[in-house]
Amino acid sequence: MHTTLDCIPCIVRQALESARFVSKDPALQEQLLRHILALLAHMDMTLPPPYVGQIIHRELRRITGDVDPYLEAKAHFNHLAQGRLPFIRQLISKAPDPLLVAARIAIAGNIIDFGVDGALTEVKVDAALEEALTQPLEGQWEGLTRAFSEAKRILYIADNAGEILFDRLLIEQLHPMERVTLAVRGWPILNDATREDAAFAGLDRLVQVIDNGSDAPGTILAECSLEFVREFHRADLIIAKGQGNFETLSDVTAPIFFLFKAKCPVIAAHAGVGLGALVVLRSKVLGKMG
Amino acid sequence: MHTTLDCIPCIVRQALESARFVSKDPALQEQLLRHILALLAHMDMTLPPPYVGQIIHRELRRITGDVDPYLEAKAHFNHLAQGRLPFIRQLISKAPDPLLVAARIAIAGNIIDFGVDGALTEVKVDAALEEALTQPLEGQWEGLTRAFSEAKRILYIADNAGEILFDRLLIEQLHPMERVTLAVRGWPILNDATREDAAFAGLDRLVQVIDNGSDAPGTILAECSLEFVREFHRADLIIAKGQGNFETLSDVTAPIFFLFKAKCPVIAAHAGVGLGALVVLRSKVLGKMG
Repeated sequence: MHTTLDCIPCIVRQALESARFVSKDPALQEQLLRHILALLAHMDMTLPPPYVGQIIHRELRRITGDVDPYLEAKAHFNHLAQGRLPFIRQLISKAPDPLLVAARIAIAGNIIDFGVDGALTEVKVDAALEEALTQPLEGQWEGLTRAFSEAKRILYIADNAGEILFDRLLIEQLHPMERVTLAVRGWPILNDATREDAAFAGLDRLVQVIDNGSDAPGTILAECSLEFVREFHRADLIIAKGQGNFETLSDVTAPIFFLFKAKCPVIAAHAGVGLGALVVLRSKVLGKMG
Repeated sequence: MHTTLDCIPCIVRQALESARFVSKDPALQEQLLRHILALLAHMDMTLPPPYVGQIIHRELRRITGDVDPYLEAKAHFNHLAQGRLPFIRQLISKAPDPLLVAARIAIAGNIIDFGVDGALTEVKVDAALEEALTQPLEGQWEGLTRAFSEAKRILYIADNAGEILFDRLLIEQLHPMERVTLAVRGWPILNDATREDAAFAGLDRLVQVIDNGSDAPGTILAECSLEFVREFHRADLIIAKGQGNFETLSDVTAPIFFLFKAKCPVIAAHAGVGLGALVVLRSKVLGKMG
């Protein structure tokens, strides 16, 4: 999806939030903000917002000299999510439809998105998880269950650290798990999940894990590794988690289901759902296939 | 006061709101927004935010070819305020302290600020007026009443159209009114009051009215007319209405009382009051005089 005019003030706000997150030095914060403003003045708005996110965070790492400024935050939310797992596992095992509960939780876990909310708290995460137990899924849940049962090769593209623990609960429902490959980002970007987070979640012992070779907060195929792109095109079902993957893949011709929590009004409108919705959205090509 | 980092995302949002207010053409909106981003990338942040506001709205008028895009909105809020006057006049005349009620209403009328809220509604205005009847004034109200009773030459710098009708109610309390000069903006800028609005409020028949010769949404003395600057320095009491006048005059050495509704968190913090407060703030020089 394109970047809209409404995205611009939000990107500026996010850039400032990020700058403050990674540095306490107002001069560095100002330097970054000015850089982003100059960039936005000339940006190609036909590109999805994660293109700018990528540049913002490259610049931020360059200015601070910190290659992974969100490392602590990622660890914090990984542990937070890990602490919630025993209780949620019980819920899933006792549920009449364990797949549905696992999916709700995995989608609700997408609240752990520092791109949208740099001041995310434990309380907000727990509220989102609890809400997910009763909140309806919007979109094509039945289509997804059918796709799950028919798929021979599933590529599951994770989004954020923390969230990836809840992804594990959904992946555990996708028997036989041999057909699942999990993809994470190639380099640290925001609080997006990398190989380290997949390992923390124990997913490397459960399924094949690859990275996409890229440092975009989404999936920009043109700059992903050959290994990732091959897997992307071999899969007969792709699960793309999170807003960033939706923004970058929504116009790509591939058998994708987008799973995310709609945290931004522009994306919610683009997806045709309400703000805060738990979304299961079939990509256009799958839509055409019925 | 300086422009802060927090002002930047807000200025970008305001620029987009303003662009949409004055034109339905997305290409024009985008052109304006890009122009503002480039400008902000290199702006002097030691200057108060109204400097940027001035440039935004000059650019907006240039691009649209419309010298007064807020003309209709100003007329709308002038009439709205006029409709409220009979009831409020009654309230004031029956009040134990008419000056206090008139001041509360004049300050609450500062809600009519399209720079802060481009989607202002009648409902919000009425809510602010009603709230003002019980909401405490923050700051130096007693100092202001003393200044009112002692002043020989009062310069009252108005802020917005609509609001200026409520300013009239306060000015009517400043007997003898011969000592009052009302100043408005020299040229249309946002929904700020000009000579036309002063005339609509009947203030030109009540007190001397001058304009400041400038198109800034505040008072930038260096670019005001000689007539205004002379009046500014001859007055022994200056009433500066609204956030824009506070932002541009808060560091000026002059006997000023700032009267405004704190609608922005940065200004509220700078003034040491809560968001939404009705503020009566003595300038530093008056503060030193006790």
